[in-house]
Amino acid sequence: MLKRRLFTPGPVPVPDRVRLAMAAPILHHRQADFLPLFETCREGLRRIFQTEEPVLILASSGTGAMEAAVSNVLSPGDHALVVRGGKFGERWAEICEAYGVRTTCLDVTWGEAVDPDAVRVALEASPDIRAVYLQASETSTAACHPVREVAEAVRAVPGERLVVVDAITAVGVYDLPMDAWGLDIVVSGSQKAFMLPPGLAFLGLSERARHFASSASSPRYYFDLEKELKNQPKDQTAYTPAVTLLVGLAEALRIILDEEGLEATWARTESLAHATREAMLAMGLRLLAPNAPSPACTAVYVPDGIDGPALRKVLRDELGVNVADGQGALKGKIFRVAHLGFYDRFDAVSAVAAVDMALGRLGWSGGRGLGVARATELLGERS
Amino acid sequence: MLKRRLFTPGPVPVPDRVRLAMAAPILHHRQADFLPLFETCREGLRRIFQTEEPVLILASSGTGAMEAAVSNVLSPGDHALVVRGGKFGERWAEICEAYGVRTTCLDVTWGEAVDPDAVRVALEASPDIRAVYLQASETSTAACHPVREVAEAVRAVPGERLVVVDAITAVGVYDLPMDAWGLDIVVSGSQKAFMLPPGLAFLGLSERARHFASSASSPRYYFDLEKELKNQPKDQTAYTPAVTLLVGLAEALRIILDEEGLEATWARTESLAHATREAMLAMGLRLLAPNAPSPACTAVYVPDGIDGPALRKVLRDELGVNVADGQGALKGKIFRVAHLGFYDRFDAVSAVAAVDMALGRLGWSGGRGLGVARATELLGERS
Repeated sequence: MLKRRLFTPGPVPVPDRVRLAMAAPILHHRQADFLPLFETCREGLRRIFQTEEPVLILASSGTGAMEAAVSNVLSPGDHALVVRGGKFGERWAEICEAYGVRTTCLDVTWGEAVDPDAVRVALEASPDIRAVYLQASETSTAACHPVREVAEAVRAVPGERLVVVDAITAVGVYDLPMDAWGLDIVVSGSQKAFMLPPGLAFLGLSERARHFASSASSPRYYFDLEKELKNQPKDQTAYTPAVTLLVGLAEALRIILDEEGLEATWARTESLAHATREAMLAMGLRLLAPNAPSPACTAVYVPDGIDGPALRKVLRDELGVNVADGQGALKGKIFRVAHLGFYDRFDAVSAVAAVDMALGRLGWSGGRGLGVARATELLGERS
Repeated sequence: MLKRRLFTPGPVPVPDRVRLAMAAPILHHRQADFLPLFETCREGLRRIFQTEEPVLILASSGTGAMEAAVSNVLSPGDHALVVRGGKFGERWAEICEAYGVRTTCLDVTWGEAVDPDAVRVALEASPDIRAVYLQASETSTAACHPVREVAEAVRAVPGERLVVVDAITAVGVYDLPMDAWGLDIVVSGSQKAFMLPPGLAFLGLSERARHFASSASSPRYYFDLEKELKNQPKDQTAYTPAVTLLVGLAEALRIILDEEGLEATWARTESLAHATREAMLAMGLRLLAPNAPSPACTAVYVPDGIDGPALRKVLRDELGVNVADGQGALKGKIFRVAHLGFYDRFDAVSAVAAVDMALGRLGWSGGRGLGVARATELLGERS
């Protein structure tokens, strides 16, 4: 009996009660019983985004919301600054370029955090930049960018500009208060901290961003946020919503906001991430992002002498444990273990134990036993 | 005990076994177990679209695929012809206009079918038209356009042009062979004949359409079909797919293609539609689209002296039966009853009986009893 365990940083496991809620007979989205469901979702999203602004719900993956965060606020020829420190930073640049936006990239070594002062310098050099795009948690490297400080740097340079944050693996993972930090667009997706299947994207939109949207001339239709803004107060979407995922979202929001509590969710996620990092270090392994680790997931270098694909294959096929590969230049060189979403301390201990076992099977004789001991120690202390 | 019955032309009821299949633990879309699932889906879609061409799968509502069918094949300033005979015809025009396409509309009275000869005349008048957009089944009016004859008319005029068909309520509903009729783009969506929740869109793409895509300059990223075409042979999507809906799709395709059979599905749907139309006429009610009725749904005028919203309210709140309202200028004036998807003869009899009962409760004394008798007679004959 091989139990399958998913430790990829999205999709993450979906709680049984959420899956069963989504298995209920289908609702029609233009009928009365849909309205309270949608209201629960949009109000819950505002709490989890920590905003008084509207949070829109799109039927797409997170990339669709990233595209919307470009096409709705910029016009062809506008100038944007993209913080590019991983695969998802690259995605911001690709989307901007697809829409004819002049794109200046601030390149950051993969695994490192951007220096907010470098953002300030870039804006002073190009005061015509109208929007700064970055990740909160760059899932490809498991590093966090200092969003708060970047937003402060943006505001310190004269001129009106948007701060647009891909927080796909940050919302519901750690404290990222959209309003308090003055973020203009914050994007997330269902298959991350929300513990849902993929298929929904979320997008919080400040007044400044809505103002930009009123004059941006890039073409858009399915992702026309002004149309969504007009529909949302009526508890409707412009186009057919992914109804079953909304049913799941309402249930997941109940778990996060009403039962565990948002701060407890952050604390749990951080404790799992911290214990995993410490365990990997105790085993003698090396982290990709030791200086700015994201609590969403941990990226660990495959040790010398071990083949990355072979390690993941033993984990998956012999032990039933799915971890994520590296992306881009990191393919085969690292593995990534998720902490965001529906995980508890024994999941984290299991992931560490699985890495220990798999490395052992591949002939590695580093610090075996030390990682699982360290994780057990740290996670046992937690109430 | 009020059992809820959904007769809206999408979403339609989802079979229990499909809902339970979707409640299984989540798969990761970059892992090996996803590949056979995706292959089952894409091969099944080709059978149901009746094509040897690729059928792409998008995580969006059908409108997203409609947008993709404009932004991927036309450039700003290109000229398109839109057959506009209902709300979804209007949508084609809106999308074309959003992308800066010069749009000529061929207006058709709502409820009527387009005259293929009018398409030919329009193309002869404007030989620079590069694509013709129309609905197969215009869900807002329950009318069918003669897609085969329109495609023939398009091919009869010199010049290379695309025939782009919104078949959201036609694929899997009746015989619409993409290849045999030479259709270039055929669009559908999960919550229709596929009996799934909303959240997936499908798009079949001819070689001619792929050729147009290679030179079209409209901006696109999330709906970049060339990227999807590159990924699909590897059983992958460019961005995170809506995995649970794909699990449901595989199960639904099994029901349609392997168990009932595609031709039997069409025949069942047509028999339900025919019996419903005959029943409404037997009651003395009037159909919106008597000359070109779609088997997807039937649109019926609310009889004189009866208030449309009151009728739908009695149906819904007192009888548990959800039918759809009219759209646009038809709001409140018609109601629409679905036949596509997971319906059998007793569902159709129930819908007719519900209309009879609700009209009776509102004081109508037309041909009560005659509709349900006629439906029972017709549907009893069917094997």
